[in-house]
Amino acid sequence: MSQIKEKIHEMKLDAPKMMTTPADIRNKALLAIRDALLAQKAQIFAENEKDLSEAAKNQIADAVVKRLRFNEGKLSDVVKGLEGLVELPDPVGRITLHRQLDEGLVLKRVTCPIGVIGVIFEARPDALVQISALCIKSGNCAVLKGGKETTYTNRILFRLIRDAAVGAGLPQNCLMQAEQHSEIDELLQCETEVDLLIPRGSNAFVRYIMDHTKIPVMGHADGVCHIYVAKTADKENAIRILMDAKTQYTAACNAMETILIHREIAKEFLPMLEEACKENGIKLRGTKEVCDLISGETMEDAEFNTEYLSLTASVKLVSGVEEAADHINRYGSHHTDAILTEDDAEAAYFMQMVDSAGVYRNCSTRFSDGYRYGFGAEVGISTGKLHARGPVGLDGLMTYKYELTGQGQIVGDYAEGKSSFHFRDLE
Amino acid sequence: MSQIKEKIHEMKLDAPKMMTTPADIRNKALLAIRDALLAQKAQIFAENEKDLSEAAKNQIADAVVKRLRFNEGKLSDVVKGLEGLVELPDPVGRITLHRQLDEGLVLKRVTCPIGVIGVIFEARPDALVQISALCIKSGNCAVLKGGKETTYTNRILFRLIRDAAVGAGLPQNCLMQAEQHSEIDELLQCETEVDLLIPRGSNAFVRYIMDHTKIPVMGHADGVCHIYVAKTADKENAIRILMDAKTQYTAACNAMETILIHREIAKEFLPMLEEACKENGIKLRGTKEVCDLISGETMEDAEFNTEYLSLTASVKLVSGVEEAADHINRYGSHHTDAILTEDDAEAAYFMQMVDSAGVYRNCSTRFSDGYRYGFGAEVGISTGKLHARGPVGLDGLMTYKYELTGQGQIVGDYAEGKSSFHFRDLE
Repeated sequence: MSQIKEKIHEMKLDAPKMMTTPADIRNKALLAIRDALLAQKAQIFAENEKDLSEAAKNQIADAVVKRLRFNEGKLSDVVKGLEGLVELPDPVGRITLHRQLDEGLVLKRVTCPIGVIGVIFEARPDALVQISALCIKSGNCAVLKGGKETTYTNRILFRLIRDAAVGAGLPQNCLMQAEQHSEIDELLQCETEVDLLIPRGSNAFVRYIMDHTKIPVMGHADGVCHIYVAKTADKENAIRILMDAKTQYTAACNAMETILIHREIAKEFLPMLEEACKENGIKLRGTKEVCDLISGETMEDAEFNTEYLSLTASVKLVSGVEEAADHINRYGSHHTDAILTEDDAEAAYFMQMVDSAGVYRNCSTRFSDGYRYGFGAEVGISTGKLHARGPVGLDGLMTYKYELTGQGQIVGDYAEGKSSFHFRDLE
Repeated sequence: MSQIKEKIHEMKLDAPKMMTTPADIRNKALLAIRDALLAQKAQIFAENEKDLSEAAKNQIADAVVKRLRFNEGKLSDVVKGLEGLVELPDPVGRITLHRQLDEGLVLKRVTCPIGVIGVIFEARPDALVQISALCIKSGNCAVLKGGKETTYTNRILFRLIRDAAVGAGLPQNCLMQAEQHSEIDELLQCETEVDLLIPRGSNAFVRYIMDHTKIPVMGHADGVCHIYVAKTADKENAIRILMDAKTQYTAACNAMETILIHREIAKEFLPMLEEACKENGIKLRGTKEVCDLISGETMEDAEFNTEYLSLTASVKLVSGVEEAADHINRYGSHHTDAILTEDDAEAAYFMQMVDSAGVYRNCSTRFSDGYRYGFGAEVGISTGKLHARGPVGLDGLMTYKYELTGQGQIVGDYAEGKSSFHFRDLE
């Protein structure tokens, strides 16, 4: 057995202990982590400086460096996050079904942790804290593998988090860290130990993980998000929303990539859009019909599935909400799509027919985020339809079990008609 | 494009229509199916005779022939099932979260159908009716592939079901049937059209499906179910429950395979067990310690993961509930496991620590079934922990989407502190 597999195996044996740790111990652990981070902040910042100077040496892009930095502001955010999680109700042991099947035979469906979760995430020290905290609150053991650009910061953060958690009474093997890239492939082989893998990163990376493991994967893929500007849209508002959705954080998966516009308002709206895009440095690409009205690069239909993650957007004219919804279902990635309209019936149609995790009316696609939904932190955004969809918080880290309590009942009696079921929901 | 892929592609285009069909139309379709089956029963029984005579020609085992048969009794069961589904509340459009994020910015989490579901199932005509009905009630399109031994019966049933459904107003392509075994491999390639695959059958078959598709698979694997007879168990009751769990339907996945017994009661209980097993034709295999007390075949520890699906059971002595739970988590398949005890604390420990979809006290493992849980029909039993666990009924065929309605809100205003979130749960 490889060293990491051996450690994960020990974690698996500790998982039932972790799953049954009382809520007050889990909350105590979160507060102990907060205290440790605050007490050791000078050391954390010093380690972070090492990562930053490595990044400077390696000429890492500014946007990435911004994510690497762990300063007073980031510390204050993760402290707020930890305190917020403590305030949230315990997700473990909620009874979601309580039914008498027959006299003295009672069924309960009870939420419980999934068990052992592996999370592979980008180079962001705050992500390490958030993910550990979500796993602790939800009673799950976690194997954590962060980006290599934050090696020094992750190492000290992990040590502080783990020591505080174990000190508060969590099992010895509740958390572990993988540091080497080669350990990812070893982790993928641990299908008897790991219950769920959550890879964060590019579509290609998530696909690689899915193709190389038998462990269930919750994919946090990228997003081709659309905004459809309908005939009755408030045009000034539409421009504000489009600019926010494209520019507020260009590299985010919930940033907008494609603008659909009702053909009847194109002559009036396209020049407004062109001007706003010029001001914001956004390059437009569009169908021939669009490029006849404003300046832009002509594009093919097949390119409408492009995720730019930069200051470029695709534009197309459509005949109405039916064509808009059809285009989104065909070319989109089922992440988050919005309609801008004053027409209630049209909005309702859009929200029903568009097959995406988020369907929005009259606001920016950038709201698609666990924090902005009031979930506290998130482990990622799921574009899959199974288990969890959209921003994934505590709920997505839970499963359930059925508890059945009897007084000696056997199925033979029911099959032979000696007994019969009397279903009655309790409480 | 292969013929089946083309048909599934058309189904995908109809899926949004199916997802938004009102509940009364879906219920009308279920009643139309009932009426069609009743009106054409003579023809259905005649087609079923053809399958039965083929089976006789091919010397198919009696147990399988019993499943093939579609007679008045089976018809009456499926009619009851259809009527039961009509009575159940609509699973589509339930609001499971309703939250104001800020003034005029309202988030809803709304249940919706998954889309296109592929179900591959064994040679049981009643399963075809049940699965079609569950998919219709839940607003999903379905690709159905039944066992080849029921070709004639499935063909007429499918035609009646589809015609009745479309006649009641469901989309043209809401249901399709695959008849050839080769079409399974074509179905596995349809990852852009099919949202979920549900294979029913052996572990090896489910594993084959998982290894040959990029479509998410909800695995309905087999079960290595345990019963632990604790020190305080009522011994007469224990024998009744053990015999029911082993013999009431030996080939079922929820039949018991392994008996764990507290060491302190072994001398008294093992001879009782031996006698009952002799009466019921059950062969016992056990550790050396067991075989020193009663006659049985000695077995190795590594064999405790065996699923016999026949009149054979494994027996082991343990020192208490901790060792029992540990054994089950190590050798079991996380399906359904029971403790027989009069001790409440011990039962609570077992139910928390055993990591299975069903954890039972003082009753037979055979109760693990959608009908017996009061779910109406089921598409299968999931031993996975994601999305759905245990018997899977309507709930397991649903996903959800987040609907966000605003009045022009942009994220920039919140990032810059011009606006701030005011989370408040509504209703």
